[in-house]
This record gives sequence, structure tokens and C-alpha cells, in this order.
Amino acid sequence: MTNLRSGDARLVVMTPYECWQQLDGSDPIARVVWSRETGPSIVPVNYVVSAGALWFQVSADSALGRECEGQRILIEADHADTATHAGWSVVVAGVAELVDTKDASHVLRDLQVWPSGQRSVCVRLNPDEVQGRRLLPHH
Amino acid sequence: MTNLRSGDARLVVMTPYECWQQLDGSDPIARVVWSRETGPSIVPVNYVVSAGALWFQVSADSALGRECEGQRILIEADHADTATHAGWSVVVAGVAELVDTKDASHVLRDLQVWPSGQRSVCVRLNPDEVQGRRLLPHH
Repeated sequence: MTNLRSGDARLVVMTPYECWQQLDGSDPIARVVWSRETGPSIVPVNYVVSAGALWFQVSADSALGRECEGQRILIEADHADTATHAGWSVVVAGVAELVDTKDASHVLRDLQVWPSGQRSVCVRLNPDEVQGRRLLPHH
Repeated sequence: MTNLRSGDARLVVMTPYECWQQLDGSDPIARVVWSRETGPSIVPVNYVVSAGALWFQVSADSALGRECEGQRILIEADHADTATHAGWSVVVAGVAELVDTKDASHVLRDLQVWPSGQRSVCVRLNPDEVQGRRLLPHH
């Protein structure tokens, strides 16, 4: 392995198509960012992509579950390799819509939620913006 | 390996001490969350912990570099293992302060910034809140 140094990789903008491809092939875990009265907040969630939207489940009494409806939220997924300085990050923005779990059973079948506990609120992020950047090592 | 199922791990709150220990032993990459006029924004950054603060560098003409000063921002670091459903997430919140790179040379020595390009703005996050959660598989 070469010695890794500062500045030895370059950032390249990903096309929306590349972003979606990257999400499709990646771990089913990302971070939701939303606005609270006190400022922005962030929490990891398991999610799934279905029919051009991103879906996740939260508990009804969580801050995210109570606050996200109708808000423009972000979902960020990324990966970074310390050994090579390669990486990528995709951010999907869109309005969060609460969907009855009964109406989303076809999607929730494919959503594996790792932590235990009831998550009765199903959230669909309807994307209006997708941005991604890839980090390409020079060496 | 056991078959992984939904709900086969439990979330446990980490103490502030555990959070700092986790950051100390982790990859030097995390995500900065800040507020824009249009809503929250998020971007991965390389960072370093020094003297109880979190430090990173950004370019002066980036949105983050122009907007973060004096704002209460978040830095989130995490790790999740798809093979076991183990993971953790730590969120540090605090006000972002711009520091002259000359006055921060002792810190920036330890900060390796992977992407090329000049990042003349040095940001110190002065923590006022640290929260973390660990995901522990049952199996």
C-alpha cells in the first residue's frame, strides 16, 4: 500500500443516475437530517428505495416521528475507506410524507429495521433533489 | 453466521465518556450538519479531536465555509456492520468558530484531509452537547 497523504484524492460530482445506482448497491442504512426548533438534527435509520422514493420507519413518539411530516428532510448515505481514501456520499432531499403501514406493506416487506421496538410510522421521502460526490484516490 | 432479522438488535444510550472514547478510536471522517436558508445541509469532512473540541477545514468559498461561523452545528460519526447489525452513532453539537490556520498549526498537524484543494478556513466546534447510541445485536 502506498503511504496516504493529505490531498491525495479528488472529489468528483456524481450524476443523479450514479447516485441512485450507488444507493441501490449499498448498505440499507443512512442518516436522516431534519429541522427542529433548536436547529438541525440527525439520526441513522434503515431505509429502502422503492419506486423512486426512500422509505423508513420510526416510532410515533420519537422526535423524528412527531416532527418530520411535511418537512423537507435529507437522507445521506456514504462510505469512506481509510485504507485508500476512496469514498462517496449521496444526499437525497425531499418532503417527508407519512404513509399508513397498511398501504406500504409491499415496500416494508423489503425494509429490514435492525433495532428492536415498534416503529409504527412509515415515512416516504419524495425526492426533489439528489446530489452525490465521489472521492477518487490519485495513487 | 446466524440469520439476521428485523429487530434483532437493541439501542443503548452511550455516556458522554463512551462517546469521546468512540470518536478517539474511529476513522477521521464524519458529517457536518448546518442550517441554510433552504433547510439543513450535510457534508462529510475529515476531522480531528483536540483539547475537547472538534476541528475541520473547509474552503472559504464553500457553502459551509461561508455560513457556519457562529452557528450551532452538528458533527455526526457512526459505524454500522451489515453482517452483525452492530453499530454506533455519536452526535456532537456546538457553536462553530473560525480559527486562523496559523493559530491552529498544532492541531492541523494531526488533521489529514483526504481530498485535494485548498481549505483555508479552519473551524473549531466547541461542544455543548454530546449524544451517542450503540446498537447491540441480541444473537
